[in-house]
Amino acid sequence: MSRFTKPLQNISLPQRVQQFLEPSVWLEFSPLSSLCDAINLGQGFPDWKPPKFVTEAASKATSDPSWSQYARSSGLPSLVSSISKTYAPLLQRTIDPFKEVCVTVGASEAIFLACQSLVEPGDEVIFVEPAFDIYFGAVIYAGATPKFVSLQPKETGRPIVSASDLQLDYHQLREVLSERSRLLVLNTPHNPTGKVFQREELENIAKVLQDFPRCFVLCDEVYQHLVYDDEVHVPMATIDNMWERTISVYSAGKTFSVTGWKIGWAIGPAHLIRPMMLSQQWIVFSTCTPLQQAVAASLEQANQPFENEPTYYAWLKKYYQRKRDYFYQALIDAGLHPVKPQGSFFIMIDISEMMKRGNIRNEMPPIVREWWNQGKLDIDATTQEAVDYNFCRWQAVEKGVTAIPSSAFYSRQHRHLGSRYVRFSFCKEDSVLEQAKERLLKK
Amino acid sequence: MSRFTKPLQNISLPQRVQQFLEPSVWLEFSPLSSLCDAINLGQGFPDWKPPKFVTEAASKATSDPSWSQYARSSGLPSLVSSISKTYAPLLQRTIDPFKEVCVTVGASEAIFLACQSLVEPGDEVIFVEPAFDIYFGAVIYAGATPKFVSLQPKETGRPIVSASDLQLDYHQLREVLSERSRLLVLNTPHNPTGKVFQREELENIAKVLQDFPRCFVLCDEVYQHLVYDDEVHVPMATIDNMWERTISVYSAGKTFSVTGWKIGWAIGPAHLIRPMMLSQQWIVFSTCTPLQQAVAASLEQANQPFENEPTYYAWLKKYYQRKRDYFYQALIDAGLHPVKPQGSFFIMIDISEMMKRGNIRNEMPPIVREWWNQGKLDIDATTQEAVDYNFCRWQAVEKGVTAIPSSAFYSRQHRHLGSRYVRFSFCKEDSVLEQAKERLLKK
Repeated sequence: MSRFTKPLQNISLPQRVQQFLEPSVWLEFSPLSSLCDAINLGQGFPDWKPPKFVTEAASKATSDPSWSQYARSSGLPSLVSSISKTYAPLLQRTIDPFKEVCVTVGASEAIFLACQSLVEPGDEVIFVEPAFDIYFGAVIYAGATPKFVSLQPKETGRPIVSASDLQLDYHQLREVLSERSRLLVLNTPHNPTGKVFQREELENIAKVLQDFPRCFVLCDEVYQHLVYDDEVHVPMATIDNMWERTISVYSAGKTFSVTGWKIGWAIGPAHLIRPMMLSQQWIVFSTCTPLQQAVAASLEQANQPFENEPTYYAWLKKYYQRKRDYFYQALIDAGLHPVKPQGSFFIMIDISEMMKRGNIRNEMPPIVREWWNQGKLDIDATTQEAVDYNFCRWQAVEKGVTAIPSSAFYSRQHRHLGSRYVRFSFCKEDSVLEQAKERLLKK
Repeated sequence: MSRFTKPLQNISLPQRVQQFLEPSVWLEFSPLSSLCDAINLGQGFPDWKPPKFVTEAASKATSDPSWSQYARSSGLPSLVSSISKTYAPLLQRTIDPFKEVCVTVGASEAIFLACQSLVEPGDEVIFVEPAFDIYFGAVIYAGATPKFVSLQPKETGRPIVSASDLQLDYHQLREVLSERSRLLVLNTPHNPTGKVFQREELENIAKVLQDFPRCFVLCDEVYQHLVYDDEVHVPMATIDNMWERTISVYSAGKTFSVTGWKIGWAIGPAHLIRPMMLSQQWIVFSTCTPLQQAVAASLEQANQPFENEPTYYAWLKKYYQRKRDYFYQALIDAGLHPVKPQGSFFIMIDISEMMKRGNIRNEMPPIVREWWNQGKLDIDATTQEAVDYNFCRWQAVEKGVTAIPSSAFYSRQHRHLGSRYVRFSFCKEDSVLEQAKERLLKK
């Protein structure tokens, strides 16, 4: 039994907490990575310096006493104004900075806030599996019931070689929706698959939703700038009639490579954003003032030329494209079977053949079990026989490279659907990716 | 009807949000203060520069890429270590930085997190009225029922001249407690009265709690350093047998005059802190990394000599004592009836005599009503005839000084108990307090 599941001095915890007593995947693989001295391509955060204009803006804001005290609860006026200006072209409309924007403690809190503000206990919230695990917690804490639709291969039986081979099953979506459905959570570009939803796909989803007027959409678009080749990021809110029922979520952490700043924002019509503003007063009250000001300044700056590119965003896209191309090829060179991502900073590989061949056994490596017994690692006891978990454990120990099992992105009852893949993050310095390649190439 | 209570496009909001559709007191009095060009002694935040060692630590941390990415969910190791060291003497025990501390988005989120993590829907949470309004929201969002005990004059009939004249009615406390009681929220030094609970008072509360083993205590001690004359701040967790059932909440915002940083922390036994750590992963995931690092460095520095005082804390206490003494006397000189605070940065005045004399009428000044009608102000419609609200409106318009009506610190059903007082914040530059004095003195 993990030390986290030990009874807490006979305290009966609220039901919502009881669902989360097992350690999350992050609590196993980040320490495991350190214990193995592995290259950590698990958790998705950039390991390079943020751009200078961003850190300079932060230094300036933190040393200016004008930005030391409480901000307006729903966002510093300078930041909501910058957001309104920046997102008008993408969302194809003018955005009222004081009624249609709510600044949050990262995109995470935007998701939590939306659930607290719009979802009644007993309502149903629908996710697209595999899904970023934080959505699940936000729904449970709102007292709602999670429901799931899954991304499926377009052609059954064929192995998937690109994230574009995956699609939503619209019939399944229609079946899972009901009068009790309150929120559909979408994510494009998609974590962990790297899928970028095409306009037509979003239109199809919108069509299904027409019959369920009580259901809103939360569209997590934090990887908006990370799209590759000729892909274009299409926000759900720009699909016909969808603005009125969509909350779009973005993050400074992903855009400016400062995940630790924890500044995100939600944009949507006033009737959806207003309840979030009301709730925000009682959850965190307000978000860090000086870094809000720094993000405001950074958004103003980001449209200017940067490193010989017309804008910072153009530079960022190229910077990531190069890493995507390099690491995708590295995985192929290593004899692995990557699923080519259209966006995001993740790549999944299909491990089914390797596991079938039997040279990697589906068991917890003895050293991992030992560390677990010694309390050096926290492991969700229900994952002891999960194929993808054991692949990742083996790879960390034997290859010195850490990935994340993709079944962690599925609800407990659907875990088996994810056991075929594991996820790498490639938001790392070139030298780190090169070293990872070398290690993966070694027999 | 305020524009906030208009139906939100026929969206039925969750019950928890419906309780907060009326604008809060802050949404009326901050804009009113601006419209009147009044001196704003309403919201409690310092208007001076934070100490240099604090802003320098922030500048350093924001420009160092080591602090740009996600922190450990429950707190940056450097910060929890500093907290553990700093609070060991106050709490009279060693504190495990990784099991007994949880860093939060200000004290606000610590309170929200404790309610989400320990309070089951249907449980009861007890407050001491008057109470900081954010507690109420945290309880409602946890699906719990708020219950109240009130601070009462020690000698009934006599006007209160010092916060020490107020005491908790222990019989009332025992009556309100039951098997359904899960949490008692205490606050010392106390907002808005400035009362500092004495050791004996806390012991009496602890005695009552012995018969209710299911009830924990959340003790909000954010004004821990702001105690005057010979008062000493006593944490509830240091009372016999209380550590095991107490969560103590503190804030960098109040201690280092940086309310906008939104860094707070909860300290308590692992069986209470652990559920908060579990919940934190799904609410904000983690707190702003660079400012956590800056607070860690500031805590290390704060015990060093500062401005000819042995420590920063000693300086802070003196700095506030001088302001308390000055503004208390200013209120007396202006013919008002202040209640002398033992701690915090608030002073209440008793307005009952003035209102009786009848030269201030209990009605909304016409200009305020006009601004409200024009949408320049948001006013909780149920406060139109509240004596203390109308006093504050009159004072802002006629005297040019903004205070906060104290009935805002009571539950709706107990508002009448607060109508006798209004609250000033004196955490302002000397020149601002002097100007406020001049305005209050003018006939």
